[in-house]
Amino acid sequence: MTKKTLHDLLNWRYATKKMDAAKSVPQEKVDAIVEAVRLTPTSSGTQPFELIVVTNPELRAQISTAAGDQAQIKDGSHLLVFAAWDNYTAERIDEVVDLNVEARGDLPLLRGYYDNLKASYLPRDEAVNFDHAARQAYIALGVALVAAAEQEVDSTAMEGFSPDAVDKILGLKERGLRSVILLPLGYRDTDGDWLLPMAKVRKSLDTLVTTID
Amino acid sequence: MTKKTLHDLLNWRYATKKMDAAKSVPQEKVDAIVEAVRLTPTSSGTQPFELIVVTNPELRAQISTAAGDQAQIKDGSHLLVFAAWDNYTAERIDEVVDLNVEARGDLPLLRGYYDNLKASYLPRDEAVNFDHAARQAYIALGVALVAAAEQEVDSTAMEGFSPDAVDKILGLKERGLRSVILLPLGYRDTDGDWLLPMAKVRKSLDTLVTTID
Repeated sequence: MTKKTLHDLLNWRYATKKMDAAKSVPQEKVDAIVEAVRLTPTSSGTQPFELIVVTNPELRAQISTAAGDQAQIKDGSHLLVFAAWDNYTAERIDEVVDLNVEARGDLPLLRGYYDNLKASYLPRDEAVNFDHAARQAYIALGVALVAAAEQEVDSTAMEGFSPDAVDKILGLKERGLRSVILLPLGYRDTDGDWLLPMAKVRKSLDTLVTTID
Repeated sequence: MTKKTLHDLLNWRYATKKMDAAKSVPQEKVDAIVEAVRLTPTSSGTQPFELIVVTNPELRAQISTAAGDQAQIKDGSHLLVFAAWDNYTAERIDEVVDLNVEARGDLPLLRGYYDNLKASYLPRDEAVNFDHAARQAYIALGVALVAAAEQEVDSTAMEGFSPDAVDKILGLKERGLRSVILLPLGYRDTDGDWLLPMAKVRKSLDTLVTTID
């Protein structure tokens, strides 16, 4: 499908500031990005988040307003909302156990593992559990950014929004979910994007990496 | 370099439970994985974490002890430790500004952006800032998992360890860092890994994804 290396993809992508409102991402490309999110590994396989794919223009306009009027949310064709579980519950973990039993058989090892997980997670503060779930969504964000680049689709990860407002717009609170990241998908407006011609800024290996041999 | 799609890579990789202690990951493959971490996008380009690459066997044995004796830390050849900033500081953000000025010129837009960032981050609780920094490390984890698979290197992301103990072993606290994820790199022991023959377990698209048109 692609001969580009991961480095090529990471160098090609950038936080697109201006999307071309006339262009729409084909469904099969959106599907490929969503499938990469689905395949993303998470802690103990809980996949403790859901992905909301919004194309509805009115809802995207409302979400854009809740995100400091960032226009990519409206000018892109699809908006991915990563929404983490607000808490771990016995029911949610049991669903993961059921899925494991279905795929792998009813193994005492698996039962014991998830019993321990429940004993560890369920007594914890909701805030601790939400934070843990949110981190898992960020693994999927990393994978989604690569997936979009592989599909030659532009994207911009956004944290600058009101989660409460977005949760209300999408009815997430009632579902035990809290929005943590927005990822508009679309195509760069090559003439209108001030960031596109600018050099990518990354720290040097010396700054970022320590090797201990 | 590879013709595998991202889906191929995500399906190939798994949380390797038993690594072949006789095999070592070539340096150029480790370098490629580290470079992918370096290129990972992060919130406002702060890259608020460092990566510690540990090959030293004695230190890896100590870290394994601090991680419930998980053997992959010793049996792999390299251990990546993702260590998030314990807090945002003016100095740390100024270094990001300097890097931006170096690459893009001294633009008022950039200065203003990071002034706003400081006004927002610096008064916040250390815990909030650390959590935010940790999430950015998880984006890099997602990218690193893909990078390892692209290099046909096995890996296992681990949260099950004592961060305090690992921080002590690696002297991270003094550097204003806190370990958040361990990622041993190595090669699967195809005969000895109980997880290898098992089916991958992932939720269905129906469970994970909601589309709002």
